[in-house]
Amino acid sequence: MDLERLRRSYAELLVGTGVNLQEGQPLLVRTEPVQRGFVHMLAEAAYGRGASFVNVEYYDPALSRIRLDRSVRNEYTAFVPSYTEDMYAAFIEEGWASLSLRGPDEPDIMEGADPGRMAAAGKASSMAMRGFLKGISANRISWNVCLHPSRKWAGKVLGSENDWEVRIWELLAPILRLDAADPSAAWMEHDAELKRRCAYMNGAGYDQIRFVGPGTDLYVGMAPDRTFVGGRCTNRAGVGFFPNIPTEEIFSTPHRKRVRGTARTTRPVEVMGASVEGAWFRFEDGRVVDFGADRNREVLEKYLEFDTGSSSLGEVALVDAGSPVFRSGRTFHSILFDENAASHIALGNGYADCIEGGTGMTDDELEAAGCNSSLVHTDFMIGSEEVSVYGVLDDGTEMLVMEKGRFVI
Amino acid sequence: MDLERLRRSYAELLVGTGVNLQEGQPLLVRTEPVQRGFVHMLAEAAYGRGASFVNVEYYDPALSRIRLDRSVRNEYTAFVPSYTEDMYAAFIEEGWASLSLRGPDEPDIMEGADPGRMAAAGKASSMAMRGFLKGISANRISWNVCLHPSRKWAGKVLGSENDWEVRIWELLAPILRLDAADPSAAWMEHDAELKRRCAYMNGAGYDQIRFVGPGTDLYVGMAPDRTFVGGRCTNRAGVGFFPNIPTEEIFSTPHRKRVRGTARTTRPVEVMGASVEGAWFRFEDGRVVDFGADRNREVLEKYLEFDTGSSSLGEVALVDAGSPVFRSGRTFHSILFDENAASHIALGNGYADCIEGGTGMTDDELEAAGCNSSLVHTDFMIGSEEVSVYGVLDDGTEMLVMEKGRFVI
Repeated sequence: MDLERLRRSYAELLVGTGVNLQEGQPLLVRTEPVQRGFVHMLAEAAYGRGASFVNVEYYDPALSRIRLDRSVRNEYTAFVPSYTEDMYAAFIEEGWASLSLRGPDEPDIMEGADPGRMAAAGKASSMAMRGFLKGISANRISWNVCLHPSRKWAGKVLGSENDWEVRIWELLAPILRLDAADPSAAWMEHDAELKRRCAYMNGAGYDQIRFVGPGTDLYVGMAPDRTFVGGRCTNRAGVGFFPNIPTEEIFSTPHRKRVRGTARTTRPVEVMGASVEGAWFRFEDGRVVDFGADRNREVLEKYLEFDTGSSSLGEVALVDAGSPVFRSGRTFHSILFDENAASHIALGNGYADCIEGGTGMTDDELEAAGCNSSLVHTDFMIGSEEVSVYGVLDDGTEMLVMEKGRFVI
Repeated sequence: MDLERLRRSYAELLVGTGVNLQEGQPLLVRTEPVQRGFVHMLAEAAYGRGASFVNVEYYDPALSRIRLDRSVRNEYTAFVPSYTEDMYAAFIEEGWASLSLRGPDEPDIMEGADPGRMAAAGKASSMAMRGFLKGISANRISWNVCLHPSRKWAGKVLGSENDWEVRIWELLAPILRLDAADPSAAWMEHDAELKRRCAYMNGAGYDQIRFVGPGTDLYVGMAPDRTFVGGRCTNRAGVGFFPNIPTEEIFSTPHRKRVRGTARTTRPVEVMGASVEGAWFRFEDGRVVDFGADRNREVLEKYLEFDTGSSSLGEVALVDAGSPVFRSGRTFHSILFDENAASHIALGNGYADCIEGGTGMTDDELEAAGCNSSLVHTDFMIGSEEVSVYGVLDDGTEMLVMEKGRFVI
């Protein structure tokens, strides 16, 4: 395997097909310092396509951890530089493309950090960035979340760091469709299949989606006028882009008050930097009324108390167990990959663009339409080869949509 | 040598004595990604002293080089994000402490870059940051410029990268006074000696400073009401700090129109990212009217044409050849160290705080007082053990100040 060529092909895919950078457009890249080498490849691809500027904002979770551990006052952990809000607003107003490149230098850096301080820091940062996050989730600009492997992350996924670069790329190449003769064309073809599934779900017009499996019997009432979407999106300038690479899901917006029953997670989930395993939830009238976890339950508790919307659903997503991510049989310890292995629900902010006319609605209108509102949004995987999914019509009729993890539509 | 302990002691020195961080104060660190490990030590020291926040802005010269080489239009190289000015203004307005940590990953990354594009990028960036740079040079906030060794920089200084960490720290420890029992006390004591020299020069009230040596016979007319300063400064909040560590110079502001004669540089100087060697200048009425260089003359030419102030003097500085930097016998390829080996002049912006009442003056008043104005400021070393310095009184009397590089005052 020619890793250099593969990585360059990946950089081209992300800048070209991912954010679909246009000539004269500036590109924002947010990532960790460990990604510097791949950032240079992204910059070369971006300037080659006519980028007016590539701005790399490096964030360093190890520095955040030092802050949580060493700040002499709790209140300092909620400090956010005054210019942050305007800076992130500019990225939206001025039509930047935004690439969020994951791949942590130290995947477990937040383990054992003070949950209260972690929540305070996260909340302050989310508040300052809410305009940016809203702009992103309304697709006002082209954006893409992706991952480039780091040594420790690869070691965690593979079980050891021996020969990690070759092994992780062997695993990732089919998932990222970099093994195709033309990766960009492969993603466009895949997108057509996702769009076909969305069209079916939207035509059927189910009132609820029901998940049934071990420990799970969950009814997710859908928001009225919601649509299932997936794959490629279009920004306000009319430019198509992939918000995630990889992406295997079709998803929509539940009604924040119409969720009931129990759901058991089928994969670990990273919540505010900590890995929550074996989580389960019981819902009544849309809210979590009971929950548990085998690991980091207290972090989950902080998450559910984060704000009024963090204990209600903002998303329901269907993923076929035939997806390359599921077939790899791996846990990736990264939501970007793991959410694409299995059907999932998200606690937190709902997607306005899954509701008819939603991107033009006020916050009050969105709330009235059933769309949940929160500063956070975290996916919890509840699908597997043991979980089936039904569409429930207004009259209560249940129709099979996925049988043991596989689409039958 | 216990490198870990030495580096921690250095981090404490920079945060404590360097910017003298106060409880509840935020700290800005600007550096390259290669410095991440030492940045963590700085953050630990800062949070330990009560920092409210440590904001690390990583810049990457390799990324700047990619931009210069690959931008499809020249105009793109002058792009600066719209929020830059407000962001840097906030650091001044809100009383941050600012630590600029040098130590390049790739010291020669700008060699061979297009000088026109380099100047355009530099100018646009300096324009956006001029409020910040003015605030810094007027000591409105505590600031410090320092260096932490990187592998390639150390290799360049030492001639090889073999065993570079131990060797570079053996070289740097005495220069940074980290070999003292109490490094902070050693810097305070050294500061007292610099202040004594300043008092002598200010008492003598020389009208001109004359440099005489091989290839050099330069008369630098001084601005009226100028004072020599050096070592520790005081910010507007009354907190003392060291703008540079190390620092060995006492310096003042020349009259921008009263410089004549010739000066030959005695060390290489980094100009807009390129190493200019063997440079010389001829001055008439304060401006460079002829110049040359053995290496990168064309970069020097771009520099002199940068703006109306870049070909006149903004600083004259005296450094004793007994300084630990000079005694090391090394060229450090970093102005922070090399300027402290030898007496020097700077082409570009003058120091308002070296003129009586200067920090309260308007731009026009400063210009009338003889203080040069420019977006740039670069030191050129003209001192050595072969260069003597005289103070010239109003009546033309010349009095010896430095004999062959050593102070006699």
